Amino acid sequence: MAAIGPHRLHSSPPSFPVRSPPPSKIYRARTPASSASHHMDLQVQGRRRLKDFPYVSAPHRDLMVELVSTVETRLDPHLLPCTLPPDVQYYQNPTNTAHASLHIRSGHKSSPIDFILGSWLHCELPSGGALNITSLSANLNPSTDAPNFLLELIQSSPTSLILILDLPPRKDLVLHPDYLRTFYEDTQLERQRQLLEKIPEVRPYFSSSLYIRCVVSPTAILVRIESEAGGGRRMEEIVQDHVHPIAKEVLGIWLDRCASGESSVGETERAALEKRDQLVKNKTIEIDLGSSMPRLFGPEITDRVLGAIQEVFNS
Amino acid sequence: MAAIGPHRLHSSPPSFPVRSPPPSKIYRARTPASSASHHMDLQVQGRRRLKDFPYVSAPHRDLMVELVSTVETRLDPHLLPCTLPPDVQYYQNPTNTAHASLHIRSGHKSSPIDFILGSWLHCELPSGGALNITSLSANLNPSTDAPNFLLELIQSSPTSLILILDLPPRKDLVLHPDYLRTFYEDTQLERQRQLLEKIPEVRPYFSSSLYIRCVVSPTAILVRIESEAGGGRRMEEIVQDHVHPIAKEVLGIWLDRCASGESSVGETERAALEKRDQLVKNKTIEIDLGSSMPRLFGPEITDRVLGAIQEVFNS
Repeated sequence: MAAIGPHRLHSSPPSFPVRSPPPSKIYRARTPASSASHHMDLQVQGRRRLKDFPYVSAPHRDLMVELVSTVETRLDPHLLPCTLPPDVQYYQNPTNTAHASLHIRSGHKSSPIDFILGSWLHCELPSGGALNITSLSANLNPSTDAPNFLLELIQSSPTSLILILDLPPRKDLVLHPDYLRTFYEDTQLERQRQLLEKIPEVRPYFSSSLYIRCVVSPTAILVRIESEAGGGRRMEEIVQDHVHPIAKEVLGIWLDRCASGESSVGETERAALEKRDQLVKNKTIEIDLGSSMPRLFGPEITDRVLGAIQEVFNS
Repeated sequence: MAAIGPHRLHSSPPSFPVRSPPPSKIYRARTPASSASHHMDLQVQGRRRLKDFPYVSAPHRDLMVELVSTVETRLDPHLLPCTLPPDVQYYQNPTNTAHASLHIRSGHKSSPIDFILGSWLHCELPSGGALNITSLSANLNPSTDAPNFLLELIQSSPTSLILILDLPPRKDLVLHPDYLRTFYEDTQLERQRQLLEKIPEVRPYFSSSLYIRCVVSPTAILVRIESEAGGGRRMEEIVQDHVHPIAKEVLGIWLDRCASGESSVGETERAALEKRDQLVKNKTIEIDLGSSMPRLFGPEITDRVLGAIQEVFNS
């Protein structure tokens, strides 16, 4: 889970025989061009576009924008600019029914940050509805063993939302009870999980990928929120009043207790961490993107995007 | 979780200012005696007593008896007799409001079995109700890396039952995706979890111990069953029609795919397994018994029982 791709569709996705092309929206004017100046322009646009978080509700967008801004502000001295090509920072399928934005910033070699990754994806569904996924993840490098940060919201209708919010551990917690105590018990992360659990519309969510279930922590918030009775308004209320403050709190814990890089490690352990981090990154790309990307965007775009992500992850 | 004590009360136990002594039941006639012949007698009684599984409903008892019998029959050639002292095979508190039976059989050195452990506990509650816990666990030794078996039913009223049913892994599943595939994906354990999840009275259960959450597998069945509307009869029906066949199936998978000892390991890995197994045993004893035993049985009985368990686990 360390490396979270732009749209993890392990959540029992519908199959996607996408609709015939709709009238294109804001994106038609922004089709990738080839000249250098256009590239520069698109670089800037790519960054702006991530923060657009279009198509989702205002509370959902506010949540994502605030968290992305908080991470970028707090970690700015550690972060390099995004080096993804413009056509990976933003891409769409040939029929214009699926769009996505991806922004990855690697950390300076001297920092504890491996990378931060923000993304959104919008995909029109044959039913007439749409799937929207927004994510923010932040991975540390093997100079520290502290947990990573992960947030993902998967909205398949205005009244149905899957929320994944966690600090995925970077060690086997069974073998390291001290690590469990430091990062999960002492930080009282469980309280945040319990706060959300109390909302009547909230149910535990089980990822269809057993591997994904393994990489999350014992205090992971993995929930499905269904607000059919209260409609879309109720969902917006839940995101604003409950999901937002909880996500902010969890991110704050990560920034204060993990991203500082205080929990440094020796050489032997560093090698083990590196191996584990790399394995998790590869497995999650395989699970998250390998199957859904080709279906949504076709093989050419899939290769381009996955190749660019892998380049950043392996650099 | 590898080593499961006789009554894991990490499940938000009520506090136990036990009631004044009730008229003693079947146990008064069986008070431990000191002569050698009585000891022999009690040894036999201890074994019988485990299979009594008193106080619980008939379907609950049937389930436990069948599973214990299945394990003992299938693994009999591998198992040594129980060597626990009679006053550990059966014990009760001074006020006669809490009784427990514990039966542990170690495996032959040449077998893949570390031990099997069966237990029940009955404790009268101040409210007038009773807490009944029954468990069966089976641990393998480091000659194999295959998962262990674990079943525990915690009944705090006729309409409330917590079920823990799992094959706890013995390796970090994040680092060993092949192990995850062999023992959890290929065995389709997830189907059993999903079958139970469909029953309307079934809700996911989160152990209050984060460590316990870590030691279970991604297909662990951790559920709370509440049958208030249907009463005790409905609970019996759920145990008989759903819990029983699912537990039997999971035990069958364990016996066929894990207990055979086919998944053998080399010397280096054996040392790592040994370390992990030992850590899990110690931690689970600490979590499961450390806090609740003194409250239920007082310090003297606690020391005796824990000492005897540790002796078996460390032999």
